[in-house]
Amino acid sequence: AAPPGLEGAVERSPTSPDYLPNLHGTLGRDGNSDSNRSGEKKSSWDKLFQDFAKDRYGICPMVQSQQKLDRPLVRVQDLTPEKAEQQIWVRARIHTSRAKGKQCFLVLRHQQFTVQALLAVGDRASKQMVKFAANLTKESIIDVEAVVKKVEQKIESCSQQDVELHVERIFVISQSEARLPLQLEDAVRPEGEGDEVRKVDLIIINLHRNLNTTTSQAIFRLQSGICQLFRDTLINKGFVEIQTPKIISAASEGGANVFTVSYFKTSAYLAQSPQLYKQMCICADFDKVFCVGPVFRAEDSNTHRHLTEFVGLDIEMAFNYHYHEVMDSITDTMVQIFKGLCDRFQTEIQTVNKQYPSEPFKFLEPTLRLEYKEAVAMLKAAGVEMGDEEDLSTPNEKLLGRLVKEKYDTDFYVLDKYPLAVRPFYTMPDPNNPKYSNSYDMFMRGEEILSGAQRIHDAQLLTERAMHHSIDLEKIKAYIDSFRYGAPPHAGGGIGLERVTMLYLGLHNVRQTSMFPRDPKRLTP
Amino acid sequence: AAPPGLEGAVERSPTSPDYLPNLHGTLGRDGNSDSNRSGEKKSSWDKLFQDFAKDRYGICPMVQSQQKLDRPLVRVQDLTPEKAEQQIWVRARIHTSRAKGKQCFLVLRHQQFTVQALLAVGDRASKQMVKFAANLTKESIIDVEAVVKKVEQKIESCSQQDVELHVERIFVISQSEARLPLQLEDAVRPEGEGDEVRKVDLIIINLHRNLNTTTSQAIFRLQSGICQLFRDTLINKGFVEIQTPKIISAASEGGANVFTVSYFKTSAYLAQSPQLYKQMCICADFDKVFCVGPVFRAEDSNTHRHLTEFVGLDIEMAFNYHYHEVMDSITDTMVQIFKGLCDRFQTEIQTVNKQYPSEPFKFLEPTLRLEYKEAVAMLKAAGVEMGDEEDLSTPNEKLLGRLVKEKYDTDFYVLDKYPLAVRPFYTMPDPNNPKYSNSYDMFMRGEEILSGAQRIHDAQLLTERAMHHSIDLEKIKAYIDSFRYGAPPHAGGGIGLERVTMLYLGLHNVRQTSMFPRDPKRLTP
Repeated sequence: AAPPGLEGAVERSPTSPDYLPNLHGTLGRDGNSDSNRSGEKKSSWDKLFQDFAKDRYGICPMVQSQQKLDRPLVRVQDLTPEKAEQQIWVRARIHTSRAKGKQCFLVLRHQQFTVQALLAVGDRASKQMVKFAANLTKESIIDVEAVVKKVEQKIESCSQQDVELHVERIFVISQSEARLPLQLEDAVRPEGEGDEVRKVDLIIINLHRNLNTTTSQAIFRLQSGICQLFRDTLINKGFVEIQTPKIISAASEGGANVFTVSYFKTSAYLAQSPQLYKQMCICADFDKVFCVGPVFRAEDSNTHRHLTEFVGLDIEMAFNYHYHEVMDSITDTMVQIFKGLCDRFQTEIQTVNKQYPSEPFKFLEPTLRLEYKEAVAMLKAAGVEMGDEEDLSTPNEKLLGRLVKEKYDTDFYVLDKYPLAVRPFYTMPDPNNPKYSNSYDMFMRGEEILSGAQRIHDAQLLTERAMHHSIDLEKIKAYIDSFRYGAPPHAGGGIGLERVTMLYLGLHNVRQTSMFPRDPKRLTP
Repeated sequence: AAPPGLEGAVERSPTSPDYLPNLHGTLGRDGNSDSNRSGEKKSSWDKLFQDFAKDRYGICPMVQSQQKLDRPLVRVQDLTPEKAEQQIWVRARIHTSRAKGKQCFLVLRHQQFTVQALLAVGDRASKQMVKFAANLTKESIIDVEAVVKKVEQKIESCSQQDVELHVERIFVISQSEARLPLQLEDAVRPEGEGDEVRKVDLIIINLHRNLNTTTSQAIFRLQSGICQLFRDTLINKGFVEIQTPKIISAASEGGANVFTVSYFKTSAYLAQSPQLYKQMCICADFDKVFCVGPVFRAEDSNTHRHLTEFVGLDIEMAFNYHYHEVMDSITDTMVQIFKGLCDRFQTEIQTVNKQYPSEPFKFLEPTLRLEYKEAVAMLKAAGVEMGDEEDLSTPNEKLLGRLVKEKYDTDFYVLDKYPLAVRPFYTMPDPNNPKYSNSYDMFMRGEEILSGAQRIHDAQLLTERAMHHSIDLEKIKAYIDSFRYGAPPHAGGGIGLERVTMLYLGLHNVRQTSMFPRDPKRLTP
């Protein structure tokens, strides 16, 4: 049944013969749409309403590729004063609608962009047509023909502030059901306006809708940009992209926190990291490789920054003499990403900031490098009690981030030379001090986004270190054997895409930067 | 124990104090390496050998980032006549070695590139030094200092045919064990030279080694190029990259051929396709999205073109009036990939052709589009008996590929308007003939590489079609609900990366174009 106000309009009817209509008649500027209605319908319609504008609005038959229409659609973001007085077609969603006497104000939205549209009873629109427009459900997708008009006073509530549309035709392309699971206006209310609807968890439940907010559009466009900048930078540096398997026969690092898969008549695991495969490529002389792909962690961690499935941006690189060659490549890649985002994604950053205000992300060139020892000294000076070779707790990482920001004015830095004891067995020991290692973490706004190291490329030393960690050598035989036929010295690291997006934008939950987040309690949508 | 001939050389000893050496002394041009040997060793060494070249060769201590050496390494591929008479350092593997009287000929390899190197007893090299070089194991990684010399006669067996290296210093960076699992020369022997060692299965068993062949280097560099060209083309067209989850709560299309994952206290599945998620992004107005990621199929198919895990290049795009807008975008993307490969990867194509000769890949602009009906007519004319709405068998696909090649001289074409009955329930019916559908496959050298269609974006029609296919509506409720809040008309498709690589290069098994292939019988490495 049609919503109130739509009774008289042309209804789509996917099972009737009308289902294959003459689209030109319905949508075109000159056609007479009567041709695709039955004679009976037509006469009752005409008698009841005698609507002079009856061909100027209605519900289109479902777009089923009936014909190739030569009618350009202008994007909402391109509606600027340069287009003033032009008659154009726009496809967009109804974001809000408000009837006021003989007028109807619509806000039309496409992606992050909104524009005001006006229908008024007059030469081009009948009373029935304005009523039709006023009754359309929010989120419906419509095609409007309109004249672009400059406005005297900026329209503060829309992204396109200098123009509005004077609508002359309006057709529904896809109708939304009346009840939305979440009102989109609620979902983009700025933080602190005391509305629980905005809470991350509820938003996630309504993720399908939430993806359509201006904020989400901006977040995920920026995230796409991070991937692109990451790859472009590395390809310029001579890296090769590789594809590594996600179904593996043995658990990567001893077997904890790994998901099990039924694999025909046997069992397999989901890869916790592409590391073994990256290293095999290095052993096969690919020299510089990267991969972008899902990484799986069966950790029962329900924190703001853990997901059970996330996107890893992984790098591995052979070096000539010193692992800092690799570390410098990675920090430079991060810097290129930060610069690219700042240059090319200002619109997106501003859109996110409207809902989630944050300070612009700061970084230095070259990247600040601190040694672990120095970090411990800074923390101790700030009153923290900890051992020299103790790992950093999450609160201490954050505190360190604040101390570094105060002292060096940067949100990005590398912590180098971690204690050997807190790193995995394949980490190369520091040649100058056996208590430390050739390993590093990178931090954004005080949270870790990358962990990396020089890897041991010598089968004998690797065996010794595995035994020292009480690892079952039988289980990692394939890994150790990889290094028996000549292996170049190499280092690398893995970056969490969702964390980089979250921390660059100053957001507070990694679920906001994963389109379809997975955690111990969330498997849908 | 050191291999024969290496007894006298400096040995690495990761656990002795020598483990932290003065690298400058060992590797540098002017240093005296005696400083890092014990006095006892030194004196016995000197007495026994009195080797004037003793500082010019040896086994380096493991590179542990002891120091940042300022010594550029020239890549094998950059060894050209322009460098003649220059004294340079090169790091490469020993591909082959042959001693001949007072001389030792080495072929050094890095990636796809090889160069001849010569050591001869004389001013710069002692007898002991030549013997040391001759006894090094194949695949060991070495640093050599050498003078680049033009040669009079081209060296046919190397990629660098116009120069050779006259070696003056030689140090081992990483030693290979003597027994290789597969001789690399065997692995790159041209097809048809009657050697079973080359057979795909055996090569796969030795994949770790096999990745190091010149052919594999070329295949996977070209594959990296396909991904890059795919994304760059789409980003230029305004597409956004998305990341879709691989762990899902319900099987995508009814539940067959899906891998099950243990997920904490419940069960989940591995995504067979990102399609639902791509479509949700379209419903959220992302307009044009793509994703590159693993796709999982629990099919017990042991053919030359099936893998249980492969890389999907997936596209989904909203269109204005006709799904050919999307189809044309996809074919244009493929054409840009073919052109880019031809322009930028000739070296790789030539390298692969040496082992696997094939005709250059041909395509037309614009892409040839045939309707399913026409294809059936061509097959019937060629003597095939089949019904008009019957699906194409694999042999018929291949035959059709040959017929199309003969008639149109192209290895790439689109088959449009498949019978509705042979496509999934969400495929949009053809508005002009209910027996057909708005769907298409794309073919390279007669094999399918992409399957796609306009999707039904209307919840009511989607429900009808699902019921017609006897699909349990409860299981696909979330999918159908995605279209209840306004959905733009859209179409898309999924491409198999490994198949595109295989067919572009004219290879015959998809396992050759997957670095770490997974099939019902193969889970390692």
